[in-house]
Amino acid sequence: MTTTDWEPVSGAVLPRYAGVPSFMRLPYVPEGDPRRAEVDVGLIGMPWDGATSNRPGARHGPRGLRDASTMVRAMHGATRQTPFKSMRCADMGDVAMSPVDQDDALAAAEAAVAGMLAHDIRPVMVGGDHLCTLTVLRALRKHRGEAFGLVLLDSHTDLYPPYFGGKTLTHGNPFRQAIEEGCLDPHRTFMAGMRGTSYNKEDIDYGRDKGVHIVEIEECMARGWASVMEEARAVAGAGATYVSFDIDFIDPAFAPGTGTPEVGGPTSFEALQCVRALRGLDIIGADLVEVSPPFDPSGGTCWLGASVLFELICAMER
Amino acid sequence: MTTTDWEPVSGAVLPRYAGVPSFMRLPYVPEGDPRRAEVDVGLIGMPWDGATSNRPGARHGPRGLRDASTMVRAMHGATRQTPFKSMRCADMGDVAMSPVDQDDALAAAEAAVAGMLAHDIRPVMVGGDHLCTLTVLRALRKHRGEAFGLVLLDSHTDLYPPYFGGKTLTHGNPFRQAIEEGCLDPHRTFMAGMRGTSYNKEDIDYGRDKGVHIVEIEECMARGWASVMEEARAVAGAGATYVSFDIDFIDPAFAPGTGTPEVGGPTSFEALQCVRALRGLDIIGADLVEVSPPFDPSGGTCWLGASVLFELICAMER
Amino acid sequence: MTTTDWEPVSGAVLPRYAGVPSFMRLPYVPEGDPRRAEVDVGLIGMPWDGATSNRPGARHGPRGLRDASTMVRAMHGATRQTPFKSMRCADMGDVAMSPVDQDDALAAAEAAVAGMLAHDIRPVMVGGDHLCTLTVLRALRKHRGEAFGLVLLDSHTDLYPPYFGGKTLTHGNPFRQAIEEGCLDPHRTFMAGMRGTSYNKEDIDYGRDKGVHIVEIEECMARGWASVMEEARAVAGAGATYVSFDIDFIDPAFAPGTGTPEVGGPTSFEALQCVRALRGLDIIGADLVEVSPPFDPSGGTCWLGASVLFELICAMER
Amino acid sequence: MTTTDWEPVSGAVLPRYAGVPSFMRLPYVPEGDPRRAEVDVGLIGMPWDGATSNRPGARHGPRGLRDASTMVRAMHGATRQTPFKSMRCADMGDVAMSPVDQDDALAAAEAAVAGMLAHDIRPVMVGGDHLCTLTVLRALRKHRGEAFGLVLLDSHTDLYPPYFGGKTLTHGNPFRQAIEEGCLDPHRTFMAGMRGTSYNKEDIDYGRDKGVHIVEIEECMARGWASVMEEARAVAGAGATYVSFDIDFIDPAFAPGTGTPEVGGPTSFEALQCVRALRGLDIIGADLVEVSPPFDPSGGTCWLGASVLFELICAMER
Amino acid sequence: MTTTDWEPVSGAVLPRYAGVPSFMRLPYVPEGDPRRAEVDVGLIGMPWDGATSNRPGARHGPRGLRDASTMVRAMHGATRQTPFKSMRCADMGDVAMSPVDQDDALAAAEAAVAGMLAHDIRPVMVGGDHLCTLTVLRALRKHRGEAFGLVLLDSHTDLYPPYFGGKTLTHGNPFRQAIEEGCLDPHRTFMAGMRGTSYNKEDIDYGRDKGVHIVEIEECMARGWASVMEEARAVAGAGATYVSFDIDFIDPAFAPGTGTPEVGGPTSFEALQCVRALRGLDIIGADLVEVSPPFDPSGGTCWLGASVLFELICAMER
Amino acid sequence: MTTTDWEPVSGAVLPRYAGVPSFMRLPYVPEGDPRRAEVDVGLIGMPWDGATSNRPGARHGPRGLRDASTMVRAMHGATRQTPFKSMRCADMGDVAMSPVDQDDALAAAEAAVAGMLAHDIRPVMVGGDHLCTLTVLRALRKHRGEAFGLVLLDSHTDLYPPYFGGKTLTHGNPFRQAIEEGCLDPHRTFMAGMRGTSYNKEDIDYGRDKGVHIVEIEECMARGWASVMEEARAVAGAGATYVSFDIDFIDPAFAPGTGTPEVGGPTSFEALQCVRALRGLDIIGADLVEVSPPFDPSGGTCWLGASVLFELICAMER
Repeated sequence: MTTTDWEPVSGAVLPRYAGVPSFMRLPYVPEGDPRRAEVDVGLIGMPWDGATSNRPGARHGPRGLRDASTMVRAMHGATRQTPFKSMRCADMGDVAMSPVDQDDALAAAEAAVAGMLAHDIRPVMVGGDHLCTLTVLRALRKHRGEAFGLVLLDSHTDLYPPYFGGKTLTHGNPFRQAIEEGCLDPHRTFMAGMRGTSYNKEDIDYGRDKGVHIVEIEECMARGWASVMEEARAVAGAGATYVSFDIDFIDPAFAPGTGTPEVGGPTSFEALQCVRALRGLDIIGADLVEVSPPFDPSGGTCWLGASVLFELICAMER
Repeated sequence: MTTTDWEPVSGAVLPRYAGVPSFMRLPYVPEGDPRRAEVDVGLIGMPWDGATSNRPGARHGPRGLRDASTMVRAMHGATRQTPFKSMRCADMGDVAMSPVDQDDALAAAEAAVAGMLAHDIRPVMVGGDHLCTLTVLRALRKHRGEAFGLVLLDSHTDLYPPYFGGKTLTHGNPFRQAIEEGCLDPHRTFMAGMRGTSYNKEDIDYGRDKGVHIVEIEECMARGWASVMEEARAVAGAGATYVSFDIDFIDPAFAPGTGTPEVGGPTSFEALQCVRALRGLDIIGADLVEVSPPFDPSGGTCWLGASVLFELICAMER
Repeated sequence: MTTTDWEPVSGAVLPRYAGVPSFMRLPYVPEGDPRRAEVDVGLIGMPWDGATSNRPGARHGPRGLRDASTMVRAMHGATRQTPFKSMRCADMGDVAMSPVDQDDALAAAEAAVAGMLAHDIRPVMVGGDHLCTLTVLRALRKHRGEAFGLVLLDSHTDLYPPYFGGKTLTHGNPFRQAIEEGCLDPHRTFMAGMRGTSYNKEDIDYGRDKGVHIVEIEECMARGWASVMEEARAVAGAGATYVSFDIDFIDPAFAPGTGTPEVGGPTSFEALQCVRALRGLDIIGADLVEVSPPFDPSGGTCWLGASVLFELICAMER
Repeated sequence: MTTTDWEPVSGAVLPRYAGVPSFMRLPYVPEGDPRRAEVDVGLIGMPWDGATSNRPGARHGPRGLRDASTMVRAMHGATRQTPFKSMRCADMGDVAMSPVDQDDALAAAEAAVAGMLAHDIRPVMVGGDHLCTLTVLRALRKHRGEAFGLVLLDSHTDLYPPYFGGKTLTHGNPFRQAIEEGCLDPHRTFMAGMRGTSYNKEDIDYGRDKGVHIVEIEECMARGWASVMEEARAVAGAGATYVSFDIDFIDPAFAPGTGTPEVGGPTSFEALQCVRALRGLDIIGADLVEVSPPFDPSGGTCWLGASVLFELICAMER
Repeated sequence: MTTTDWEPVSGAVLPRYAGVPSFMRLPYVPEGDPRRAEVDVGLIGMPWDGATSNRPGARHGPRGLRDASTMVRAMHGATRQTPFKSMRCADMGDVAMSPVDQDDALAAAEAAVAGMLAHDIRPVMVGGDHLCTLTVLRALRKHRGEAFGLVLLDSHTDLYPPYFGGKTLTHGNPFRQAIEEGCLDPHRTFMAGMRGTSYNKEDIDYGRDKGVHIVEIEECMARGWASVMEEARAVAGAGATYVSFDIDFIDPAFAPGTGTPEVGGPTSFEALQCVRALRGLDIIGADLVEVSPPFDPSGGTCWLGASVLFELICAMER
Repeated sequence: MTTTDWEPVSGAVLPRYAGVPSFMRLPYVPEGDPRRAEVDVGLIGMPWDGATSNRPGARHGPRGLRDASTMVRAMHGATRQTPFKSMRCADMGDVAMSPVDQDDALAAAEAAVAGMLAHDIRPVMVGGDHLCTLTVLRALRKHRGEAFGLVLLDSHTDLYPPYFGGKTLTHGNPFRQAIEEGCLDPHRTFMAGMRGTSYNKEDIDYGRDKGVHIVEIEECMARGWASVMEEARAVAGAGATYVSFDIDFIDPAFAPGTGTPEVGGPTSFEALQCVRALRGLDIIGADLVEVSPPFDPSGGTCWLGASVLFELICAMER
């Protein structure tokens, strides 16, 4: 098996809208497939929105992103990277997550990522809501045996206290939980883009108390994104770092298809530049979450999400 | 306080699209309001879809139905009934159901219905997914101390075994659970409209074994709905009966906004006739469930659902 | 100038979606065009919804119907009629009706129709809301000097009393006004399809008192549309008759794009058959009203409306 | 390899909206896959609309139908058939058809079908526009060496003469071409559902001259679909028969997502009954064509199309 | 009654999509409610678009904004203001404005605002089209006995001469009328954001002749919004000032749901900054107008409008 | 005939949504109309997408743009130009281009433009996909006898090699073909806005080898659009220049309705400024292409496209 077998078919051969849609037309390598041993970077879907506090639909995210991502071509327009040549990337399929049982769903997801890590596959998780990220962080923590850094691009910190009285975990607190569980090193945790109304800013206060670097939107806009991302690189440093991208980081004019949109965010151009600025970090995993196709009538959010995914993969090239 | 205070404002005074939208423009009588003691029929929203196995969005149902229901006028066109004159009807608000915790959500919903029953308010529940119905059945069972009958109009039996391995309860098995828990008398339980592909028909076999009367769509269409509903009345008999209406009973051309549509169903005219045929039964509670506004781009499903709700209320007139 | 000049260009020559869209691709013969003297049947748009009590948008009806109507081909599929060969039909353009001044708008519309009648052009009015019809009835009454008959297919009688306290005229009372003004002979006035909730049925009582024949939906469905339309022909008789078609006559699954939909109506097949049954009447004018494109996301209502318009024109063939 | 390997994963294990979407979650068996030798019935996509005379978008049909078809469960609700147990069915992928070169596209498609026939795989083609059907008919004709019968459910005969002056072939004439090329036996060719305006009925006259049985919509509605399909079975007889289903056969209220809708058609219930009535024929191939997702905002057309596909496959069970 | 009674229920208790939707979940205090005496700031809906010259639908604005505004949380993200703690804010309901009678509608609206002013409630009007603003200006003028200043953020000056020949008043001239009637002090009137094609710039010439400060979009973009708003504050000065925000100020990519969009406007981030810059002015009333939900398929315009409303309320904090 | 006859009717006389929609309400001057001799600038529709490699629908562009363009008023807001006074502009109708035959379609389009050039009418072509542009370039080349310059605003170079193996021409290579055929002078050819993933950058390399000036998006954003357009003017120089505007130049948040969107582009404000910067060039023809209404649910792309068209026409004023 040569590297060529891992490259997606070109849109000049099979039109982009044709064919069974795997992520970016990559080979589909489900559990049990012998090619797993060769995969470098694995895209894995978590079609689950069981921790969503507002509008649902992120369970349809992996399907929507697979569809849109067949429009991605092989070469990065600006950097001329060809990540599918330099790395063996694959679609690992979706985790079977129960839509009605949070505990089961999270356990299944963590196990699936653990299975990838056992093969030294770097995970690129496609959500699903943001609590899905916690399962990747947990698996990485167990696999690596120590905490790691985080760069989060999002309109929310996801450091909120539990709400609704019951279950501790929602899509509003994966990073608080991950800090409490020792997955993340808060001093190497960087967050940018936060905005919108707030219950009480307790999340930001909590994060800063722990040492998390949080740059709210007013500061981002005032300083410019290049400066913000320079800080991100400095905070993450040379150590192992996870990158999480919530599609609601981007202004809802560009990304309406999400559950908890916050107006007043960056453009798609700025968002892609932010991801591109992460090249050179030691990225041990990444995700794109909270794309909700039922709220995306023109399909633009899925297409933007697919573009972000490609940018993430390019940033992971070593 | 006279009966007039309970009548909705007319669309000839305040245009239908104006005003804070309560169900059918009825008085809003939340918990703690002293007028609760006077209410005869209470519409209560259960904005929850935490048991949905397919496309979510029914959590937005009560909001969507309140909005559309302000187009309902005071008098039934065919029967000339004016239910808001003959009964004190009210919008009891929505239950605060956690979107991330099934146990909490179900308990809160059952408690809310129990609170209504304590005031002798007949509940008309507006879903939410079909598992919400179980909370009403449980409250009624506890309040009445005995099992009661059921008429279900639906494309599914909702007598399925548990799936996904974990949680027992999904929106696919409220009636199986209700039979097991002794809420429903299976011999006084009637179901019509079932259709679509099936895993294995175990649900139908289970129901028939228990004594449930199930009329699948082919038989409905062959016999005609008048005959089907005559049987429904005969099965329910003179005893206490609950009526559950899943919007996916109706063909998705008429009601696209639902999570698990099944093609090949009745028209809206037929569906309204079916509900109308229930007049005279001793209806102790009713519901309309599974309206999912994110899948209803033209708003037609909400409007049809509101029309069904009005028909249900008219059928409950004593 | 030969008759051929009046025939629309074929979709086999210029694709249906191409070209400046006039109604059914007929010649555009605005005021001042010398060809007006030759026109037999004139389609005239009234882009106005200033009398709408519920959801607006019928002002966009003529534009939407022009667009969809370019999909109409030359020959009636069932009757093999070719009305654009047998009659000189034309698009007379739209009346310039002020969206903010009811009096001005109605006067302009009536004058435009009067101008057509002066050339012996039979009007086919494309609304706009149903009050537009009153302007055609008034112009016809003045031109003919006597009352005439009416066939109305609608979900409402439009015989309502004034509402909102102010202006007498709304889209809910053109026919009441037309009876009061002596435009219509109530004994030769026939209405079918009425349904939905009602304020108080005063409209129906008023109509029946005057002698209007009203067949509500339950009777229509029970008797079948062929029988209903036989009665329509009998009521209208041999005298001059106007035909008014409100798109909300048809069930909103088929025609969602309207302002005051009422569920439980006929199918598109039944609706077309109803119009077809009017052939042989002395139709002095006709209309299609209440198509509201903003509520028609798939465009199906405009296409159905265009199909009804073609059926009306075929029914007017002498 | 046992038969079980060919059965789709259940929605009770992997939620229906999850996973890489192949047709009905069947195994994906592209060209070169050794399992091709075992396939009985192969679903093959033809994502191409290069012969469309009106609104395009059918090129997106296979993608849309794969997505919706993951909602199909294993057992037919009415007949209790389990076709994926009794037959080895597979998703054969999409043909790489050039969107800009009709000749190349048709040749590629015919070759792909020929490749399936060489393995004794019965083709179920998923369009794409109706000209795609011609490629299947041609391959079958060459493979079998003789003409065969046809049952067509459609709102158009697709027996039109060429238009636009240039290319002979459009989606309006595959069956005329197939008759001229000797693929079809016109005396064993049956068509039902034809309606809408016409250029000149030349298509119907041509067909009847050749011996084709054509039942237009008025006759269908008057006789009832059971009688119509009885005639279909009689015409097709015991010989080899192809079944072609154009989604525009069904009324656009049920199936808005198509390029050339014609109002006044059958319901989805009636349409499924029509397909079901074909059981027992010797069906050598089938197709579903003309689903155009860009005109299907609620996704209902894709879901209805997937339901028709399942019904077709059940009808092909021997 | 303590201040706590005036705070909206948190989304962490009742999910944001649940409950009867009042503006920002504030208490509903309709006419006749004794709590009116305590209200500081009252949100009042004017569901009326009877002066709209282009696409209608703003009558649905208050309903759409109530729905979206339940996503607003209690604390401003950047300023940490909690306006619902510092001021008693309430939803005063909608004015019953006749959709068919401009004179009646305007009189009813003005009377409703006058009733609020009599209780010293500062009005925040939620439109409705821009002519609704005139009713607030008139009531304020009568209540205060003198002219006041204005800050208008809009893509149009709304200083146009009358059009359509008839009624003087349209949504294109509220401010011209308000200047003529002595409501506004033109020298303390500031407008920014004007753009798009024009009939003849007569509106701008008229305004500048009167002393109005108008900053067209090219100048806004060249100077930056901070500079523009500094000028706004300088023009308005220390005196009483009204703030009017037309949603079409913002680029239609961010706010498609409006009747007369003009491309080339500011982003949502910039727009919020502009409103925030008004803090410190003596704001005697404010409005958000021209949101038209029928043209807002993804709901983003309503959500942006609700965000602007919250920003306006925060700017009104004293 | 005076110049006044060439001016569009004002929206203050006939509401913008009324009337048969020609481009910008200009006179419709089809082939054979004697007024052709007087036309200075002719808008001609090419409703054709037969060279589209991705999502189709641009064939509906001219219809959609005619509709939206009736919202354009007579005077440019910033420059106070009134191009319909200074030039006789007209809607020349649509070319009858076969949707199924590329050769015929291109020949018909070129002939139509040649016919305009024979009357000294400067063409403004409204697509249609980008291959339509080639027909204009070819006609101009033949008419002028020499190569000319080009300014292209686009997200793609459209200098791609042929794909799909068959037909040489697609919407991805009109400019490569035009260079090869000698229509364009590559040294006077300027392109800006290029971005997105790439097959292999062969297109950019080809262009630069030939001498084409290509400014990719990163450089555009870094330098600012004013600088970029200064270079455009310098490259084009004083000679005859064609301007081609692909709507996908603009970010898809502003222009979702196109077939091959690329995220990360300019805003609508920036795009209009770019066109405005071209004033003073010797523009011999222009186009706006790739608007695809089926992917434009809110209509915003058509409105933006119409605004670009007006800006183009103003730039062509001499």
